[in-house]
Amino acid sequence: MSSTREIDALIDMMAKLPGLGPRSARRAVLHLIRKRALLLTPLADLMQTVAVTARECLNCGNVGTSDICDICTSEKRANGELCVVEDVADLWAMERSGVFKGRYHVLGGTLSALDAIGPQELRIPRLIDRVSTENITEVILALNATIDGQTTAHYIADQLDGQVTLTSLAQGVPIGGELDYLDDGTITAAMRARKSL
Amino acid sequence: MSSTREIDALIDMMAKLPGLGPRSARRAVLHLIRKRALLLTPLADLMQTVAVTARECLNCGNVGTSDICDICTSEKRANGELCVVEDVADLWAMERSGVFKGRYHVLGGTLSALDAIGPQELRIPRLIDRVSTENITEVILALNATIDGQTTAHYIADQLDGQVTLTSLAQGVPIGGELDYLDDGTITAAMRARKSL
Repeated sequence: MSSTREIDALIDMMAKLPGLGPRSARRAVLHLIRKRALLLTPLADLMQTVAVTARECLNCGNVGTSDICDICTSEKRANGELCVVEDVADLWAMERSGVFKGRYHVLGGTLSALDAIGPQELRIPRLIDRVSTENITEVILALNATIDGQTTAHYIADQLDGQVTLTSLAQGVPIGGELDYLDDGTITAAMRARKSL
Repeated sequence: MSSTREIDALIDMMAKLPGLGPRSARRAVLHLIRKRALLLTPLADLMQTVAVTARECLNCGNVGTSDICDICTSEKRANGELCVVEDVADLWAMERSGVFKGRYHVLGGTLSALDAIGPQELRIPRLIDRVSTENITEVILALNATIDGQTTAHYIADQLDGQVTLTSLAQGVPIGGELDYLDDGTITAAMRARKSL
């Protein structure tokens, strides 16, 4: 299509990344070739390194470079709170906020009858195991506010019922949100959970 | 921020690509780590190869893997037509359409008084040189329909006036375009250049 085999192959492969299509992959590759020394070579080297060193934490499912991640090894974070998230990206989002000081458990997805994903396909048995062995006092279900996310939260709540305090993230108006742009569900949830000033 | 030094560095570098921001870079890196054998390692290898082999054609400015690109070396394409484009991406777009059988000349940008880009910063002297030495009969100015693009086209037309036939791409309604969604300028251009059925 464009010029030569390797460059075309690189464009095709970049186009497979989430968020990039054929057009943006072409732009990205041209940009990389133009900034070869500054961007393309270091990026290739870094990818090579990450391909060798990256691994999933055997305990919580976080992505890092050791078999047990920094959060799981840190004694400071063993405060009895366990935050359950769907995905590593969600864990990173929680960490950026800096609000949570406990440990995490990454499920690796949500229950889905349609896609034949049951508790065994997720890290749910390991979660139940951790709750009974790690002195967990509170499990915070920080799953996405989607139907699959909430179904999964209900299932986990059933499994852990009576063993620990179960909480979930508050639902309401996001900070900086304008009512006019919010969906009905969010406004209903915010109204129901209204607080006295 | 997230997990470890190398992974954070990879995310930061990916976020510098056009079309990707910090959020989509995180998603892309997690995707790459999950598909390590299928995507991350081959991508790193390909980038390494392209970093070594990619070069600009010394004649026309196209990006390929040889000093003179395939189009410039192909005798079949020496039909006297020379298509002037701003950028390699534009050349590739023309090639995908398959409509043009001649050779190209990539300027590498447009004239811009604001950014202090004059004819010497672009491949304009080389273009004038090629027109007099390569038996060019027609120069097609396929520059973007922006102010800078059209300024550059006028400048080149002035320089080459009288030496060759000068043409530019037709302006009008794009195929599949709906009048209601077109800007006034396009509709005016299409109306002025109307054709009898």
